[in-house]
Amino acid sequence: MSVSIAYLGPPGTYTEAAALAYVGTLAIDKGFSSPLCPYPSIAQTLSSVVQGKANLAVVPVENSIEGSVTVTLDLLWQLDQLKIQKALVLPVKHALLSRSSTLAAIKTICSHPQALAQCQGWLERFLPSVQLIPTNSTTEALKHLDQDLSLGAIASHRAAQLYKLPILASGINDHPENCTKFWVLGLQPAKIGSHTSVAFSLAANVPGVLVKPLQVFAARGINLSRIESRPTKRSLGEYLFFIDLEAHASKASVQAALSELASYSEILKVFGSYSVLPIDSPEVFDD
Amino acid sequence: MSVSIAYLGPPGTYTEAAALAYVGTLAIDKGFSSPLCPYPSIAQTLSSVVQGKANLAVVPVENSIEGSVTVTLDLLWQLDQLKIQKALVLPVKHALLSRSSTLAAIKTICSHPQALAQCQGWLERFLPSVQLIPTNSTTEALKHLDQDLSLGAIASHRAAQLYKLPILASGINDHPENCTKFWVLGLQPAKIGSHTSVAFSLAANVPGVLVKPLQVFAARGINLSRIESRPTKRSLGEYLFFIDLEAHASKASVQAALSELASYSEILKVFGSYSVLPIDSPEVFDD
Repeated sequence: MSVSIAYLGPPGTYTEAAALAYVGTLAIDKGFSSPLCPYPSIAQTLSSVVQGKANLAVVPVENSIEGSVTVTLDLLWQLDQLKIQKALVLPVKHALLSRSSTLAAIKTICSHPQALAQCQGWLERFLPSVQLIPTNSTTEALKHLDQDLSLGAIASHRAAQLYKLPILASGINDHPENCTKFWVLGLQPAKIGSHTSVAFSLAANVPGVLVKPLQVFAARGINLSRIESRPTKRSLGEYLFFIDLEAHASKASVQAALSELASYSEILKVFGSYSVLPIDSPEVFDD
Repeated sequence: MSVSIAYLGPPGTYTEAAALAYVGTLAIDKGFSSPLCPYPSIAQTLSSVVQGKANLAVVPVENSIEGSVTVTLDLLWQLDQLKIQKALVLPVKHALLSRSSTLAAIKTICSHPQALAQCQGWLERFLPSVQLIPTNSTTEALKHLDQDLSLGAIASHRAAQLYKLPILASGINDHPENCTKFWVLGLQPAKIGSHTSVAFSLAANVPGVLVKPLQVFAARGINLSRIESRPTKRSLGEYLFFIDLEAHASKASVQAALSELASYSEILKVFGSYSVLPIDSPEVFDD
């Protein structure tokens, strides 16, 4: 049996690290395989499951410093068929990769804008006059490091290993507690798990309009671990709300709360219930 | 008298357009001037006011398609001294600028990631195999267009005018209702205005913890036009909440609500009251 897993690539990204850790948690029997397939964007990663090209997709959803990966939330709302099967929480430890032997020789640093932002303090302290260039992923610029000794890239330890590049500085993120949450998504809902994600749009913007949706959960003692607003993209000031509940959707109190929430909502979507798997250290998936 | 205005540059950005429109609304007397000064990042734009280099700063805060400009919210919380004096809402009309005379000759398109995202549908339809390169601003790549006919850039009509570049396609954003809200910030609060922005962090994450802060406004008939959560950057799952109220902070009911909110909050910050100025068309600030 084979479960193919699409992820936001290329190889060496933190999403690949999360996908590898997830595969490690699956019971690997004889004859069971989990080929990983990188896609260049979150949209293409998620669409691959909807189109039947992959069974599961792994994408980032939230970082402890930068906040939501909004494109993931927006696509989940638009694509409609995807269910969250698992959440993975991965510590993020950025490293500066370069063929240069000294920091002083680095003139340019490339990385994903979020990684550049997460190392801002370190960069201002040690490389204040370096030029920062945003790229589509943390690994995109790695292929250029061999040709240009004045070039550095911020990426994962796994990327250094995979692309055989030296690490010039390690743990350079400003917040050591930096971690990213990923979702594993498929077409089927998971049967177990203590977290449920839903999203809804409201018909009107009147005083207290968001209070009622939140009260349906508070009244039943259901904790909300997250609330995130996203624009409806219709007009400025109209929002969707994404909510994470700390309970399984099949629980009677959650069923009752969701049924009441539906009466206040224009559209209500339930993205399934799932468990959250903390991944202690990125080293677990080192080859 | 002179009021210097810092803005997220370089010249030709939508923020410059908003800053120019704002200057147009000021009563320009004899001897009154408003020099505009571009800064390369939102952090530097806002810091210029805190450091006394500029009187006011203009930065983007929210787009109707992409949502919050999270760096603006995070900096407002961190810098602490800034007050919102005015909100400006500007329609965004993206154009494709290039020295090429045909779409078919375009091989690469550069722009800010948000502008690329906002034209995604148009790009997939008319230029499906083009390479997309993210840049730090919509105007950064414009200087390269003269040397490379296969290069295009997504920018504003004002940028086309300012850099004397031909427009190959106009109104290419996927959502025609696309608009961006900017804040004008200074060290003094504004005296008039029907909107107030506040942010708060909560001590604990228990059922209903967000319900009470929202109820203090609902109970007094104060409409919330926006609620946005941002990570505290301490650990995943801890949030700050940014709220926009439709009332001036000096109103008795708002004072009472804020005083009650303070009792539920770990930290409460009030960023001032201000009026919202819709700018009908980007043509108003064409030279």
